[in-house]
Amino acid sequence: MIKGRVIGRIWSTKRIESLPQGALLEVEVEGGVKVIAFDPLGCGDDEQVLITQGSVAAGFFEGFKAPVDALIIGSIDEHM
Amino acid sequence: MIKGRVIGRIWSTKRIESLPQGALLEVEVEGGVKVIAFDPLGCGDDEQVLITQGSVAAGFFEGFKAPVDALIIGSIDEHM
Amino acid sequence: MIKGRVIGRIWSTKRIESLPQGALLEVEVEGGVKVIAFDPLGCGDDEQVLITQGSVAAGFFEGFKAPVDALIIGSIDEHM
Amino acid sequence: MIKGRVIGRIWSTKRIESLPQGALLEVEVEGGVKVIAFDPLGCGDDEQVLITQGSVAAGFFEGFKAPVDALIIGSIDEHM
Amino acid sequence: MIKGRVIGRIWSTKRIESLPQGALLEVEVEGGVKVIAFDPLGCGDDEQVLITQGSVAAGFFEGFKAPVDALIIGSIDEHM
Repeated sequence: MIKGRVIGRIWSTKRIESLPQGALLEVEVEGGVKVIAFDPLGCGDDEQVLITQGSVAAGFFEGFKAPVDALIIGSIDEHM
Repeated sequence: MIKGRVIGRIWSTKRIESLPQGALLEVEVEGGVKVIAFDPLGCGDDEQVLITQGSVAAGFFEGFKAPVDALIIGSIDEHM
Repeated sequence: MIKGRVIGRIWSTKRIESLPQGALLEVEVEGGVKVIAFDPLGCGDDEQVLITQGSVAAGFFEGFKAPVDALIIGSIDEHM
Repeated sequence: MIKGRVIGRIWSTKRIESLPQGALLEVEVEGGVKVIAFDPLGCGDDEQVLITQGSVAAGFFEGFKAPVDALIIGSIDEHM
Repeated sequence: MIKGRVIGRIWSTKRIESLPQGALLEVEVEGGVKVIAFDPLGCGDDEQVLITQGSVAAGFFEGFKAPVDALIIGSIDEHM
């Protein structure tokens, strides 16, 4: 998995039908690479998150083939 | 998923039979990397798009194994 | 597979249900890239480990689809 | 998919049995990265080609599990 | 596939049970990246090899899910 910080959200009105409704967050990974991940957890700006990628991410959606290759699977507990 | 901007289109006359008919767009991702993605949405030059990659992309095509590892799944709404 | 050194551990309280309980270790790969991997072996800080990635990593978990795309499969014997 | 130019061919006499007979071409992708791809189309030196990667590439081979993770799926029409 | 040169071997005594017995070779790919690949061919130091990656590599092992995401599928014939 990779760790990153939420830096925004994107909207897509013109989209393929099988793309599930839900938040698509832009996440910046260490090194500056940006990934767009589906968020089932309701994460917010600046939150640190854990992302899984590839076919494993699509496996989260049951009963249909979701075209999702990046999924937020957890919010990382910040240390004080 | 990754975000990029359409910069062109490619044509391939000599191709394997299982490659579906349809637009193959060249998309430039942040950082300068270029990806060729299958476009089922009719996107145009300079449009900002969302791309899914890997076996998840091929899952869009039903009833046969499409040799497609990059698929445009949405056009990104531009903010004004 | 890739080789790396354990540099820490992360905790995630807010997480999707299918993420298995167990250690999530932060591993630094040569070149400085960091990966978060599920650890079924009880590895500790500074231990050198072998990581498998992608759907192959999820295959370790039986009977359900784990959203895990990086798995520690071995601790590397250090040479004296 | 990625776009590249054929720069050579490799031969492998000592190989695993499930590797299909056929051309293994060395392709240089923009940025200088080199990929070895299976070529079912008879492409030649300096030809510009389209490559699909991952399990999608192996899906081209029917009836057995080919250990092929990069496949030339088309020759790119050159513009005049 | 990618091409690389064998630079060493690693041993792992503390490992998950499903990791097959056999050689795990360290291979340096052009550009300096290092990959650890399972070797069913008995390759030696300094030998140039062809590696397949991802779930395709695991498909080589029959009857069980091997946690192997990199497999040596051939030794490259050296030109004189």
